[in-house]
Amino acid sequence: MSRVIRIAAAQMGPIPKREARAETLCRLIALLEKAAERGAKLAVFPELALTTFFPRWLMDGDILDSYFEYSMPNPNVQPLFDRAKELGIGFYIGYAEMSPEGQRFNSSILVSPEGEIIGKYRKVHLPGSVEPREGALYQQLEKRYFEYGDMGFPVTHAGPSLDEAIIGMLICNDRRWPEAWRCLAMQGMELLCVGYNSAAYDPNGGDTESAELRTFHAQLVVQANAYMNACWAVAVAKAGSEDGSGLIGGSCIVDPNGCIVVETKTLEDEVIVADCDLDLCQQGKSKMFNFEAHRRPQWYSLITEQTGVVIRK
Amino acid sequence: MSRVIRIAAAQMGPIPKREARAETLCRLIALLEKAAERGAKLAVFPELALTTFFPRWLMDGDILDSYFEYSMPNPNVQPLFDRAKELGIGFYIGYAEMSPEGQRFNSSILVSPEGEIIGKYRKVHLPGSVEPREGALYQQLEKRYFEYGDMGFPVTHAGPSLDEAIIGMLICNDRRWPEAWRCLAMQGMELLCVGYNSAAYDPNGGDTESAELRTFHAQLVVQANAYMNACWAVAVAKAGSEDGSGLIGGSCIVDPNGCIVVETKTLEDEVIVADCDLDLCQQGKSKMFNFEAHRRPQWYSLITEQTGVVIRK
Repeated sequence: MSRVIRIAAAQMGPIPKREARAETLCRLIALLEKAAERGAKLAVFPELALTTFFPRWLMDGDILDSYFEYSMPNPNVQPLFDRAKELGIGFYIGYAEMSPEGQRFNSSILVSPEGEIIGKYRKVHLPGSVEPREGALYQQLEKRYFEYGDMGFPVTHAGPSLDEAIIGMLICNDRRWPEAWRCLAMQGMELLCVGYNSAAYDPNGGDTESAELRTFHAQLVVQANAYMNACWAVAVAKAGSEDGSGLIGGSCIVDPNGCIVVETKTLEDEVIVADCDLDLCQQGKSKMFNFEAHRRPQWYSLITEQTGVVIRK
Repeated sequence: MSRVIRIAAAQMGPIPKREARAETLCRLIALLEKAAERGAKLAVFPELALTTFFPRWLMDGDILDSYFEYSMPNPNVQPLFDRAKELGIGFYIGYAEMSPEGQRFNSSILVSPEGEIIGKYRKVHLPGSVEPREGALYQQLEKRYFEYGDMGFPVTHAGPSLDEAIIGMLICNDRRWPEAWRCLAMQGMELLCVGYNSAAYDPNGGDTESAELRTFHAQLVVQANAYMNACWAVAVAKAGSEDGSGLIGGSCIVDPNGCIVVETKTLEDEVIVADCDLDLCQQGKSKMFNFEAHRRPQWYSLITEQTGVVIRK
């Protein structure tokens, strides 16, 4: 038996602050069409795929609010939903969410090839700070602009058009936290989708980590966590120099062995596809990573009982 | 400031069943001397470094018991302890432990350069099965011969001769379980030592995973978990064809960026060394992996509340 879904990673180049929302939507639709042309049933877009990565600036009021979606879909994004349904392709997309209660989240949704929203996730691992770093040209203010995700790590049971895949979503920094992957895998996850905006260098001039090292880190965590959780993973960048701040590319589709099947070659809008056989997860899930047979949760309590490091000498 | 320890990974080639214990001890001492010659203050030996990997055979009674150490040190291994103390080099070594209460564990100890046992660990993640696989030429009977480790994941605070490193130990299969690394990192671990005996192929003739893929897996999990826990890691194989059953090599020393600093080139007795600056852990521990600032344990409960996968549709 095999359950093969052709999946596209739809990497985006930078979305400059000045780019009109309609123009960004055209780019998303063009990527979607390329993915569909190549036979994909699911396209994965980046984190905050409708706007520039605005947490790099200090702002408030109407300007800040203008980066958020007040409902999903909404008239600004409806053409993307319509085109996807027409093409019979599902998608993952990240966006800034304003909830009906006025809460802000860094969110993603999963839309089926039939055009229904079948999954929703709110980013749990927010990097950055609440207070701006004084004198810095660029900020990382996710902890200021977003509340911590309040949904935990839900999986989506997709329908027959996606081979009844069990799909998990993460957003950017989440992928570096093995706890997030594990919580999804405890629910049988077969496919992990994650979009990201990850700095290629310190835009304020630090030089501790090169773009090459940062791309290596980004791929390493996806490869190892895919292997250790016996699932497919699709990791998709917003890449390139966005308003003077560099973002890594390195979007990739990774198999349950942790091997990169295909990866992007540019820092621009680029579609890559792979045939992902969900049944390949069974080798890991039934043997090496048969959780029921091999996990020993009675010894894992420090993971949930402590937030930070506690040195006990 | 920097806290640099020169560490050796002391890989071993196979230890055939017929090899006399005294001969194996000579090999261990020779490796230790090479490590000390090259200036190492700590040498890391493999899992079950005193014997062949005996869980590959079904046995019982005196024959089984002959593979176990009834105390540590004991007269059979005393020369290794004596020589290490003389050379002023500490070591990690894996062995089969028979406790005073008659319990069997797959264990490791950490010995200081002053010759004191300063750390002890009993393997938590036992692979294999309790019952032998019928008709199989080779077994994997760790679950039959050993009890699950009952000490959790303790760290050792080493003394000044090891730069007061906070050291964690794992054994073989443990390294594929991110929970194990995280429990150690929650206690401030700066250096992880792990010895292993990992099959290079299915000795019973299956062909789902090549030796190359298995070596990739072994290094991938060490690299990613070292990065995600901002620690150094030293992973050391018993390698080569042992009594007709192939074991991978790929011993390596990995920095807190997840990069392999040095790795073995053979499947034989081989020493590699690296200067490990423990203060390099601070970049990760204070920023990207600042647990106190970024972890959200209220959402991690599936990790401790479930052993196996639970599908909730």
